[in-house]
Amino acid sequence: MNEFELIARLSRGLPGNSTVVTGCGDDCAVLDFGHPENLFLFKTDAVVEGVHFTREMAPEKIGRKALARCLSDIAAMAGTPAAALITLGLPEDFNAGFIEKIYDGLNALARKHQVAVVGGETTANPGRIFISVAVLGTVARGKQVLRSGARPGDAIFVTGELGGSISEKHLEFEPRIAEAQWLARHFSIHAMADLSDGLAGDLRHILRSSGVGAEILTTALPVSRAAKLQARKNPAKSPVAAALTDGEDFELLFTVAGGDAVKLLDAWKKQFPKLKLSCIGKIAAGAGIVIRDKSGPHSLDAHGYLHFA
Amino acid sequence: MNEFELIARLSRGLPGNSTVVTGCGDDCAVLDFGHPENLFLFKTDAVVEGVHFTREMAPEKIGRKALARCLSDIAAMAGTPAAALITLGLPEDFNAGFIEKIYDGLNALARKHQVAVVGGETTANPGRIFISVAVLGTVARGKQVLRSGARPGDAIFVTGELGGSISEKHLEFEPRIAEAQWLARHFSIHAMADLSDGLAGDLRHILRSSGVGAEILTTALPVSRAAKLQARKNPAKSPVAAALTDGEDFELLFTVAGGDAVKLLDAWKKQFPKLKLSCIGKIAAGAGIVIRDKSGPHSLDAHGYLHFA
Repeated sequence: MNEFELIARLSRGLPGNSTVVTGCGDDCAVLDFGHPENLFLFKTDAVVEGVHFTREMAPEKIGRKALARCLSDIAAMAGTPAAALITLGLPEDFNAGFIEKIYDGLNALARKHQVAVVGGETTANPGRIFISVAVLGTVARGKQVLRSGARPGDAIFVTGELGGSISEKHLEFEPRIAEAQWLARHFSIHAMADLSDGLAGDLRHILRSSGVGAEILTTALPVSRAAKLQARKNPAKSPVAAALTDGEDFELLFTVAGGDAVKLLDAWKKQFPKLKLSCIGKIAAGAGIVIRDKSGPHSLDAHGYLHFA
Repeated sequence: MNEFELIARLSRGLPGNSTVVTGCGDDCAVLDFGHPENLFLFKTDAVVEGVHFTREMAPEKIGRKALARCLSDIAAMAGTPAAALITLGLPEDFNAGFIEKIYDGLNALARKHQVAVVGGETTANPGRIFISVAVLGTVARGKQVLRSGARPGDAIFVTGELGGSISEKHLEFEPRIAEAQWLARHFSIHAMADLSDGLAGDLRHILRSSGVGAEILTTALPVSRAAKLQARKNPAKSPVAAALTDGEDFELLFTVAGGDAVKLLDAWKKQFPKLKLSCIGKIAAGAGIVIRDKSGPHSLDAHGYLHFA
């Protein structure tokens, strides 16, 4: 059994109760505590030494990333993060200055987004630093944006540029909190997710949750400069493949009714002139992702390879 | 710098915001989201293979313990746990059946206490299993019991029996949720904590937070059978020392006004006839812990050794 099969098994039959609006399977859990205005968003994530970072990286950026990943998930629900707890696993030979700088980076991002860091727990974790972050946030009742609302005919959008995050962006990305809130306030966003597993993977989550398919135009993909530079060094992966499959972009992926697309693009340019917004395709009936390039439509397999459809 | 000095440093100057009622330094963080009736309790904790458990232990009990530790902290605030998220670090050679049984044990305890398990995250953690649990709970506005409310003249109580938890109880303890809620509903509990670091350590947390001292009577300490059995094998640690310093008892430690003590004991016996409640001493002006035995008063040092006062 691999990790994904295990997760699927562990996700079945989890205990619930009357607070659960949306449990396992979206960017955050959504909980209803009878607050007159708000629902609550609950999320944990972890970064692990040797898996997500090394001691050669700037510790401030490691701490920043640990929190930013969770904030990106709160953004993906159109929510507002409020409080965070840090669980820190420390190896025997931990360097206190390094750990303090991890916290400095995390705290600086928390301050920027008015997130309170309200404690946590420290434990031994022989061999490596393990940083788990739990975040509690809020969203106005009924305004949470799930993965499950995409409909045939919807336009598909992504913020920013995609691919090549590993060179730099994965340590420096901005959680799109303000942008997501603005979107949910001014438009009827049908479905949204943040891009952590790569566009193709995260779009598949939306498609499966919504019971629909999608067609993506390669010419519309906002390929990052980093992805193009990497493709020069490693021609086996094209810039388009990088934009489709590289993880940790932490941009927003969302859908709106096709009729709203032009109005949304115009309003976005006025509101966020420095952040690119791209319409990359449309939601279709059916299932799976079709990629359309100059040579015609192709199906995209789980490894990011294109096949003639 | 050791771990405790590091934690003290990391705990200073953490980012706050207007939701924070009680941040770092109590059993849970207490947050105010403007809910008309409730405040929110937020807590994380972790258990790590080779530190808190081994693969030789029953996996159901490992999962149970991972959640129970957090529930014990919610109990220590007189709160009600509502939802949990699990962050799971997995080594390369993980045994899927073992992990599923960890979840079985965790889920069973969650069901018992009507806690929803609303997802989590899985990551690689080369070398060992790492289980971090985040719990969100509620407490009626103003009914949260902190560590900081102990006053001179208070009677000090503990539930259950103390010491020797390592033989068995650390994997099987019952979070005292119903008991703590009953206490807070019927009495004015001045201060409360759960016993995770050992009676002396956790009492010190209360004393420091409250700016008071305490006198404990050794004859009143409810020493567990496990602690007595261990003392026979290892005469270097007396049963009283075990009750004072062994970790992971996960009982409630609390104080009430001296005048409430007898009434509380009587009411407790009717309400919880199967669970021992012991008055072990009293809060005094000053600082630190004085232990009184047949030979007179002694001061207790940080290592659990007694010195003539």
